[in-house]
Amino acid sequence: MTLVLTSNEIKKCVQLNGQLIPIIEDAFKSLALGKTTMPPILRLDIEKYHGESDVKAAYIDGLDSYAIKVASGFFNNPNLGLPSSNGLMILLDSKTGMLKSVLLDKGYLTDVRTAIAGAIAAKHLSNPESSNVGIIGAGVQAKMQLEALLLVRNIKTAYIWSRDSKKTNTFVQNIKDKINIKIIECESPEQTVNLSEILITCTPSKSPIIKSEWLKKGLHITAMGSDAEMKNELDPKIIKDCDYYIPDSQSQTSILGELNHAIKAGLVSAEKKYNELGSVIINSNLGRRNINDVTVADLTGTGVQDTAIARHTYKISADKGFGIMIE
Amino acid sequence: MTLVLTSNEIKKCVQLNGQLIPIIEDAFKSLALGKTTMPPILRLDIEKYHGESDVKAAYIDGLDSYAIKVASGFFNNPNLGLPSSNGLMILLDSKTGMLKSVLLDKGYLTDVRTAIAGAIAAKHLSNPESSNVGIIGAGVQAKMQLEALLLVRNIKTAYIWSRDSKKTNTFVQNIKDKINIKIIECESPEQTVNLSEILITCTPSKSPIIKSEWLKKGLHITAMGSDAEMKNELDPKIIKDCDYYIPDSQSQTSILGELNHAIKAGLVSAEKKYNELGSVIINSNLGRRNINDVTVADLTGTGVQDTAIARHTYKISADKGFGIMIE
Repeated sequence: MTLVLTSNEIKKCVQLNGQLIPIIEDAFKSLALGKTTMPPILRLDIEKYHGESDVKAAYIDGLDSYAIKVASGFFNNPNLGLPSSNGLMILLDSKTGMLKSVLLDKGYLTDVRTAIAGAIAAKHLSNPESSNVGIIGAGVQAKMQLEALLLVRNIKTAYIWSRDSKKTNTFVQNIKDKINIKIIECESPEQTVNLSEILITCTPSKSPIIKSEWLKKGLHITAMGSDAEMKNELDPKIIKDCDYYIPDSQSQTSILGELNHAIKAGLVSAEKKYNELGSVIINSNLGRRNINDVTVADLTGTGVQDTAIARHTYKISADKGFGIMIE
Repeated sequence: MTLVLTSNEIKKCVQLNGQLIPIIEDAFKSLALGKTTMPPILRLDIEKYHGESDVKAAYIDGLDSYAIKVASGFFNNPNLGLPSSNGLMILLDSKTGMLKSVLLDKGYLTDVRTAIAGAIAAKHLSNPESSNVGIIGAGVQAKMQLEALLLVRNIKTAYIWSRDSKKTNTFVQNIKDKINIKIIECESPEQTVNLSEILITCTPSKSPIIKSEWLKKGLHITAMGSDAEMKNELDPKIIKDCDYYIPDSQSQTSILGELNHAIKAGLVSAEKKYNELGSVIINSNLGRRNINDVTVADLTGTGVQDTAIARHTYKISADKGFGIMIE
């Protein structure tokens, strides 16, 4: 029997809150300790419609279930009045491969676990007293990354910039009522960096937005927009110039993340091994050592996060008696 | 809205019959013509439980939907009284990526499209007057391959051999009532080859069962057991010695199929290009030219077959009003 869960049921079970932080931290720890099996992402491009489906999967040693996740992005959808993101997760029994659950979350759980990863990166890498954040981007993740950051840092002001000033303005108006901090629209990405102690980039940009010469002492950057070969938000020199570069999964960021571009530009060696986010969670000495250090977290999104959040959602949903059992 | 279909509903809509042959032939033709996008298979191994999940996906140009398929094999399951195979297919809209359907087929559609591919290989590669088939293996596919072959060849006698003579005997007794041809148990794979004009190998063997020196004039072999790096049913020399070697997808068979072992043994060059099954369907001159030719079809299972059968199943199911619509 398979438990089929709707997106409404899933949203009732899982919200963006601090409860998820240790759950996703544990997933990153398992990944860093090599206690996972996480194959390369399957990616199907449908160029004609400017669309793609990605499949991620991961088994975490000792857990009784694992997830396979399909996430689609179709970038003409907004013109059709549809969200560009979509997807579902499936949860399988680790011992038998039997299908335990189909989570028809339409991409919601991916959004949540991505935002939580941003919070985890800021928690372990940014200066604890940081109170100003810069957000580059004005999409769904811009809002969720900001909300997630509030779970781990006492943020007073958020500075927002995106390429589309109209979109930025609408975004700022929308979140002003919902998030009880100062929200200020910036005129340029440079101004945003200048005003921020933490910078979160969440755009689908294919060319660098943040220049290396803008880096300032103590800055922490979470770059979470790049999850494909061509995407790139940071000047590749930043990867070389920062004090600590921390990938979620180096095997992914070297192909899909900011690291990919730094390697291609010949600025860092493809052989160089970095400590991953999970290692920094386990041992804080592997991250920021000094208030002036510049840290960069490169997040491409990992299958272990999907397995962690799918398991959590399934457990809560089953406890609440949600969903339909299908033979 | 997503149409969720159960395995019982799916079995009512799709059976192993001749109607499926042109549907799967069209999929192979699109693949051979380069009119598809088919990424490499994602494979997640769960070694502790002798299990694996494979994900296949393919978009066929011009079609309004595409499938992503998860197939799991857990080889301790029979000891637990469970089938070793399991899975589901999902169907997505090609223009928007929206989830059209979740097909909870438990691997049934994979079994069917695999058997139909065997029938297609025999239809286009074996001598038309072949009346004797040898089957190596006594599992689900052994039965389905035999049934599918009867759709395209006037078979009088099937010769069966598997490693486990008890299992072979049970298999023979079970199908004798269901399939109205002579079914004879063989003592050895060599004897099976000797008595056959068409040979179908459908085992999970990791070392060659069929020796090159047993090859005889006019024989057609469909090797469909190998779908992973370590699996191997045919002496690699057979790939070199046969007159026509025809992969379903050379990019897959060179990694996962019989071709993989012939390349590793240095018997054929990794650079050599073979005509694929789809090309032979389009142009019969690319296959058998002579009654004495020895032909080998190497089937690893392709995403285009999954997309074709998932689309077909969805259409029939929707027409019949089957399934549950879920928001």
